[in-house]
Amino acid sequence: MYRSRPKGKLDDDVLNFLSSMSHDQSILYYDIVGSEAHSIMLHEMGHISQPELKKILAALEQAKKDPSNIETGDAEDIHEALEAFVIKNAGMDAGGKMHTARSRNDQVVLDIRMKVRDDINSVCTAIIDLIDGLLKKASENKDAFMPLYTHLQQGQIGSFSHILLSYADALFRDLERIYQSFGRVNQSPLGACAIGGTSIKIDRKRTAVLLGFDGLVRNSVDATTSRDAFIEYVSDLAILTTTLARMAEDLIIWSTSEFGFIELADRYSSTSSAMPQKKNPDPLELTRSKAPVVAGKLISMLGIVKSLPSGYSRDLQDLKPLIIDASATALGTVKIMDGVIRTLQVRKERMYDVSKNSYAVSLDIAEQLVTKKHLPFRMAHKIVGALVAEAAKSGRPLADLDPKDIESVIKAAKIELEAGELARIVKDMTPERSLEYRTSEGSPNPQEQDAMIKADIAKLDGYREGVHKRSKFVQGSFENLAREVEKYLGS
Amino acid sequence: MYRSRPKGKLDDDVLNFLSSMSHDQSILYYDIVGSEAHSIMLHEMGHISQPELKKILAALEQAKKDPSNIETGDAEDIHEALEAFVIKNAGMDAGGKMHTARSRNDQVVLDIRMKVRDDINSVCTAIIDLIDGLLKKASENKDAFMPLYTHLQQGQIGSFSHILLSYADALFRDLERIYQSFGRVNQSPLGACAIGGTSIKIDRKRTAVLLGFDGLVRNSVDATTSRDAFIEYVSDLAILTTTLARMAEDLIIWSTSEFGFIELADRYSSTSSAMPQKKNPDPLELTRSKAPVVAGKLISMLGIVKSLPSGYSRDLQDLKPLIIDASATALGTVKIMDGVIRTLQVRKERMYDVSKNSYAVSLDIAEQLVTKKHLPFRMAHKIVGALVAEAAKSGRPLADLDPKDIESVIKAAKIELEAGELARIVKDMTPERSLEYRTSEGSPNPQEQDAMIKADIAKLDGYREGVHKRSKFVQGSFENLAREVEKYLGS
Amino acid sequence: MYRSRPKGKLDDDVLNFLSSMSHDQSILYYDIVGSEAHSIMLHEMGHISQPELKKILAALEQAKKDPSNIETGDAEDIHEALEAFVIKNAGMDAGGKMHTARSRNDQVVLDIRMKVRDDINSVCTAIIDLIDGLLKKASENKDAFMPLYTHLQQGQIGSFSHILLSYADALFRDLERIYQSFGRVNQSPLGACAIGGTSIKIDRKRTAVLLGFDGLVRNSVDATTSRDAFIEYVSDLAILTTTLARMAEDLIIWSTSEFGFIELADRYSSTSSAMPQKKNPDPLELTRSKAPVVAGKLISMLGIVKSLPSGYSRDLQDLKPLIIDASATALGTVKIMDGVIRTLQVRKERMYDVSKNSYAVSLDIAEQLVTKKHLPFRMAHKIVGALVAEAAKSGRPLADLDPKDIESVIKAAKIELEAGELARIVKDMTPERSLEYRTSEGSPNPQEQDAMIKADIAKLDGYREGVHKRSKFVQGSFENLAREVEKYLGS
Amino acid sequence: MYRSRPKGKLDDDVLNFLSSMSHDQSILYYDIVGSEAHSIMLHEMGHISQPELKKILAALEQAKKDPSNIETGDAEDIHEALEAFVIKNAGMDAGGKMHTARSRNDQVVLDIRMKVRDDINSVCTAIIDLIDGLLKKASENKDAFMPLYTHLQQGQIGSFSHILLSYADALFRDLERIYQSFGRVNQSPLGACAIGGTSIKIDRKRTAVLLGFDGLVRNSVDATTSRDAFIEYVSDLAILTTTLARMAEDLIIWSTSEFGFIELADRYSSTSSAMPQKKNPDPLELTRSKAPVVAGKLISMLGIVKSLPSGYSRDLQDLKPLIIDASATALGTVKIMDGVIRTLQVRKERMYDVSKNSYAVSLDIAEQLVTKKHLPFRMAHKIVGALVAEAAKSGRPLADLDPKDIESVIKAAKIELEAGELARIVKDMTPERSLEYRTSEGSPNPQEQDAMIKADIAKLDGYREGVHKRSKFVQGSFENLAREVEKYLGS
Repeated sequence: MYRSRPKGKLDDDVLNFLSSMSHDQSILYYDIVGSEAHSIMLHEMGHISQPELKKILAALEQAKKDPSNIETGDAEDIHEALEAFVIKNAGMDAGGKMHTARSRNDQVVLDIRMKVRDDINSVCTAIIDLIDGLLKKASENKDAFMPLYTHLQQGQIGSFSHILLSYADALFRDLERIYQSFGRVNQSPLGACAIGGTSIKIDRKRTAVLLGFDGLVRNSVDATTSRDAFIEYVSDLAILTTTLARMAEDLIIWSTSEFGFIELADRYSSTSSAMPQKKNPDPLELTRSKAPVVAGKLISMLGIVKSLPSGYSRDLQDLKPLIIDASATALGTVKIMDGVIRTLQVRKERMYDVSKNSYAVSLDIAEQLVTKKHLPFRMAHKIVGALVAEAAKSGRPLADLDPKDIESVIKAAKIELEAGELARIVKDMTPERSLEYRTSEGSPNPQEQDAMIKADIAKLDGYREGVHKRSKFVQGSFENLAREVEKYLGS
Repeated sequence: MYRSRPKGKLDDDVLNFLSSMSHDQSILYYDIVGSEAHSIMLHEMGHISQPELKKILAALEQAKKDPSNIETGDAEDIHEALEAFVIKNAGMDAGGKMHTARSRNDQVVLDIRMKVRDDINSVCTAIIDLIDGLLKKASENKDAFMPLYTHLQQGQIGSFSHILLSYADALFRDLERIYQSFGRVNQSPLGACAIGGTSIKIDRKRTAVLLGFDGLVRNSVDATTSRDAFIEYVSDLAILTTTLARMAEDLIIWSTSEFGFIELADRYSSTSSAMPQKKNPDPLELTRSKAPVVAGKLISMLGIVKSLPSGYSRDLQDLKPLIIDASATALGTVKIMDGVIRTLQVRKERMYDVSKNSYAVSLDIAEQLVTKKHLPFRMAHKIVGALVAEAAKSGRPLADLDPKDIESVIKAAKIELEAGELARIVKDMTPERSLEYRTSEGSPNPQEQDAMIKADIAKLDGYREGVHKRSKFVQGSFENLAREVEKYLGS
Repeated sequence: MYRSRPKGKLDDDVLNFLSSMSHDQSILYYDIVGSEAHSIMLHEMGHISQPELKKILAALEQAKKDPSNIETGDAEDIHEALEAFVIKNAGMDAGGKMHTARSRNDQVVLDIRMKVRDDINSVCTAIIDLIDGLLKKASENKDAFMPLYTHLQQGQIGSFSHILLSYADALFRDLERIYQSFGRVNQSPLGACAIGGTSIKIDRKRTAVLLGFDGLVRNSVDATTSRDAFIEYVSDLAILTTTLARMAEDLIIWSTSEFGFIELADRYSSTSSAMPQKKNPDPLELTRSKAPVVAGKLISMLGIVKSLPSGYSRDLQDLKPLIIDASATALGTVKIMDGVIRTLQVRKERMYDVSKNSYAVSLDIAEQLVTKKHLPFRMAHKIVGALVAEAAKSGRPLADLDPKDIESVIKAAKIELEAGELARIVKDMTPERSLEYRTSEGSPNPQEQDAMIKADIAKLDGYREGVHKRSKFVQGSFENLAREVEKYLGS
Repeated sequence: MYRSRPKGKLDDDVLNFLSSMSHDQSILYYDIVGSEAHSIMLHEMGHISQPELKKILAALEQAKKDPSNIETGDAEDIHEALEAFVIKNAGMDAGGKMHTARSRNDQVVLDIRMKVRDDINSVCTAIIDLIDGLLKKASENKDAFMPLYTHLQQGQIGSFSHILLSYADALFRDLERIYQSFGRVNQSPLGACAIGGTSIKIDRKRTAVLLGFDGLVRNSVDATTSRDAFIEYVSDLAILTTTLARMAEDLIIWSTSEFGFIELADRYSSTSSAMPQKKNPDPLELTRSKAPVVAGKLISMLGIVKSLPSGYSRDLQDLKPLIIDASATALGTVKIMDGVIRTLQVRKERMYDVSKNSYAVSLDIAEQLVTKKHLPFRMAHKIVGALVAEAAKSGRPLADLDPKDIESVIKAAKIELEAGELARIVKDMTPERSLEYRTSEGSPNPQEQDAMIKADIAKLDGYREGVHKRSKFVQGSFENLAREVEKYLGS
């Protein structure tokens, strides 16, 4: 339709290659709303008469009500199809003016900004819900003793709640990042036109306000060229899904027969087509794979804009499906994890058993030697290492060591220490005692758990309110715009 | 349907997250054919009676004829849906046996292998066509003198055909790579079952032959776990699309007003919605963006399998859309480039003009000083550098230098050389002469061009035949299988 | 040295594979400072006597003064080597206590946080300098008319300053992003110990204050596991270097013979070993390649942490060189671009010439038809498209069209328009007039340029002050720590 | 030194940014050898006299013997530094001719091709050694029964040898891929010169033979531009390290306390600085991280060449460290894995215990129902699923089910089956019996293990010979070249 100069029609093959239609449905709504705001501004500035505006808005409202009316046959993209629809319904005299002082170049990036703005609010809400689930589950599991692992080897005694709170804290940073990116996304590029602005008197601030933006991407080259805010957003999603993949990995390992710490709800597990005994953590595995799926989209985006010259290039079109799919993928994954967390069962006895029979109290014992016997830590570390070596020979927990064994370890270490005292320290160190003693800030000590949960709840409330306010503001702007549209339609 | 142990139904949300349906249509055909071969083998080995087989095959043929009959409502994937369809149509007694000695784990990878095998043949064919187009275009443009660029600065005189042949040679390596990967793809995993084979007497070689495979992925853990052949294939596609992106970049630059070397056909260019004068190389820009699009899929694939334990994990499902989309993207891009090349117009006069007025003959002149005057190359390099500096001051080509200028350059260089002789060498060095003198193997010298085109045509014929043979073999196997099926259906 | 349990010495090969020494020099300084703060806190909490502390601090100061004294022979990493050095110099009784209530797990991430904190300040400062250079260059080039390009085709008339300001605005977002990431980096993990905190009474807030942190990474699992803040930082660098790559691409194209818009300073260009005439934009080409170099590091980081279980894993060690190199690469690239921008020469006449002879005024003319003749934009777009087609036939600029040509275009379009008037509009549209008319906010109109430069200068001052304050604060904390150390050394 | 036109010296900062010196030491040797071959050819073609050649070769040999003599101070790269060294030592008259008919553009890619060629042979050799280790370990562990896992859940009974053989088979494909890439790497680009060949009579085939190449990269643009063979190689390394990461993941999980299947040798594990009981699989964790480290380099490479125009661009320089580091990383990782495999201890009793108490025989039991009782597989699957559900209630293995339990399951399933018979089938299914029955090709059945080991040994011998032959051929060519050099030096 725009073919003012090149002649001939595009082949189907070529049209198909050029087309972005498959993902354009996601932005059609925004294209309509954006066109309404632009047209109203054109009218206010005297470029479109009221009757013309009415015709345009009527056509746009019709498109909004039933998008299936828009013929997409020959069009390369939804912008072209929508304009053709408006011209067909409003007539060339009115519809032909809708594109005054506007280009696909500022239009397409306007639409994506509105879409991403909404996605940010959705993803933030989903993360808030997930953190809420984690905090609830943590409250119920402060007494779920379990080994904490480093290198996947039993390290220190901890609790299931402590792990859940570590997820919450990581997710808070994900939330913060995405929340902050909103500021760079919610700026209006409309009015930058093709690349260098326009001689037609327009009011960029007016369309920005009508569409709920916080401000302008002022420089017209910047407005039509730059995609960094979207790359940042997808990069934030890549980090977020990586946080989720870590959670998935933990939960997959803990739901093996060998660990046996948790059991997934049936809804969040699958069966095998061949092996009747299987209960597989499929949703968690797919959660795990989503991190590289999103990371791949990020790297595609960075690759696409790499060394593009300034000014719109068609390469940028290929960003659209990457952004939209990354958003949907991340959102779905957060929600699945929310369901998994809320429904999983914790096997506290199994966790306690493993804790009790592990050597994960070794560091606690070494620290008792430091605190009570004033040994240098390196010395204490060596002695307890020797105790473990002795116990491991016969596969016993430390608490089952004979006084004789302990004595010989002390002798070999050539330090002055009463064997009986060391034996008492060792026997004393149950999982409960381990956490009771470990009172440092941010530790799995039950009181620390309470304090962290409390602090997190307050923090979460703050974010919930912030996201709510933002969503309300965009919604309010759109409602206001709808009233304006109605006013003109009724005129 | 497989829910032998876990209870309860899956939520829509969860089902949606787990589902691979959106891309499963691409492999349904292969799933049917694979099921037919497996069932025939089961019959031949005595596990299914002839009437049972007939019922199964009838149901499968029905599914093949009209896939829309398969209900996919509750199914997680197409394998489950197809089995349910067969059981429904053939009855549990017959249909319930189709999955004997088979698991989704060997089945899914079987299907993808058959799909990728076909894709490899399609991509190879498309590359062959593109090379053919390049060779044809090269034949017509041996006399299209143009500067060759390094660092995007004019370097030496060359010809448009020479560049086209450089594309052809790069594409030959892409072709070779993909052609070789076929060997690692076309191996049958069927019979590996869930992960550890089966106690039921089966004949893995028989199904492999029925389905046109060259051999087996023998080890059952390897067969169900490994995806390296697909990653290799997508990596080959990433390199291929990178070759195409280079071609696109060249052509985009050469079709700017400032270069003006080529003009794209209208079919392969687009207009601007705002700027009436524009003729934009959109298909080339989208070709350029496809390289990072495919590279992103590659990195997702590498990320997904990274540190997965041995044995099928559901993460692997997310490879499917990546492979299928990468294939389709690469194939479409090769075809678009084919169209672009065959239809572009070469502006030989403009190319010649730029060549003549450039300093791209400098190296030729320096080499004449080496050949005729036996100057060390480094010395000759300096003298010609000085000539260029002198000419550049006033923006003249070298041929327009005054004898006086040349004399002063010689003096400053303190070498013995007759100014007149140098002047003659300089003036003599037209673009034509430049290529005539430059006879080294693989240079843009017209005779070299002829020789390279001839050699490439022969090479291309070899590949064409090879790909044809392979396609024929797969097709022949499938026809043979169809005859077997018909035999049983008619029994 | 830590080998409390496993026996035997590590092979050289294995040690080499495990070693992170090559990049540890960059964090040694931080390891020393961190150890000083930790030791002082241990003393204040009663775990180390004053004489012991003095010995430890003396050894640490010695290590700081001459790092070459630290034997790294057998050590896997710098933390182990430093502790061995301290024990050797301060004795086991004192030195063996330095590691009380600390683990390599909280120590290593503490060091990287301090390093990245400094890097953020350096990168921010360099970006501020670059923006400053851009604003200066923009001020000098408001009258440098040039075509603005979309799809690398001449689009609208603009100015060099306008492009420079678009770079500045993109860089402001890069700056903002990196500036915001500081908050997530500058949190102290110290005191999280191995993974689950400690039973020894410590004061995490005290070490945080001594080391200039804004707060704590509270949860001990989160503190030792999470690396998202570093991934975010490198992701910000990937986006930043992508901005720089765009600038490089523009400048490379504009410094070709064919465009000829700018000339790079000799310092920022290279020569050819073979072609004497060449002046190559090598620093810009290497700037361009840095974007994928950093993006590759980002994807490695995402890949490394993908599906790691909670708790420190040795995989995380491989993040260190990626972070450090990405930082150094990005910093160097910003500085090079700063030099390129400040020293490049703008060829205003060539730019003007190209502008004048281009069709980049077409949209301006169409807009005049809208404004003055109230044509619908789509109609005006078509008419001007026809004018361009006519002019392009004979390669003339629009201003050279005959009245006759114009008349026939009007006739073909079947619209009412006086040919003379259209001719006047066309002739009137010089590059100067084009920008004079184009007054929309953010356009290349000279007054808009002035306004944007002014606004950017104010914004820049704000960031300069903010970064300065932050650097000062860290520096102040370190000076305070140094005074504490001196106090104890003199005790 | 090459500065024929641009004036002024490069800043240290700029020089540093441009420099590739840090990685050039790895290719210096090849640069010298390549220069020798080129000079000999130039002499043979009459462009260099014998005395001149002697001087040049003497200087080159000196450089080879003691590379530290080469001053690299002002040089951007090793090529420039080496030429300066030769000119200094052989004089301008002789040394100044070495660069005749050669450019850095063909020279640098020549060097990397020779380096990668050697690296390919090294990596192939290391993989062969690793496979050899796997086959040996497999021979010793055919009786190491263990569960095979899908979704990390116990699936079927298998053996440790079966897993090791699955690694071997995956590594065979890695080997094949890298082995095949050699053909695309070992082609000489020398003689392509800057980009368009030369008018000086040269013999490209002669230098190719002298340097051990299999043929030419003929087209001069292709020869200087293309880097696809290197990207392919690094892509092969990315896949290889991903195979190794899978092995690492398995072994890390199996060496947890909870699984307890294997114990790593002390040499291949590390201790904790804080937790005395720990034995951490650090080398395996670093093996795991190497896959994304190499994948990141791959994506950087794809990103660097993406949309570069034809002809050498300085961006390509940044490929060099990526290739060299990827090679070294992959090689080191293969060797570490070799050590890990050869030294790990297998805990067969623990493996057997877990196998016996698992439900991993469920599929075997279902298959017995198919074989012996001719139940449709889907039916058998359901019954055994019900048995497992029953047994799981009380945590018993299937063999411990009461006849009563079995009877009630049969009743609920409404099938005709004698409870006693089903009980016998269940009790009969020990791990040993499970593998004895499972005879399908590629299964863990002991005889299949023997057959696969035998086949793999033969295959390995073939590759060992092939790699040996190739290495010999390159070595032979270099020895021949050395003799030529000596001949001229002694002349």
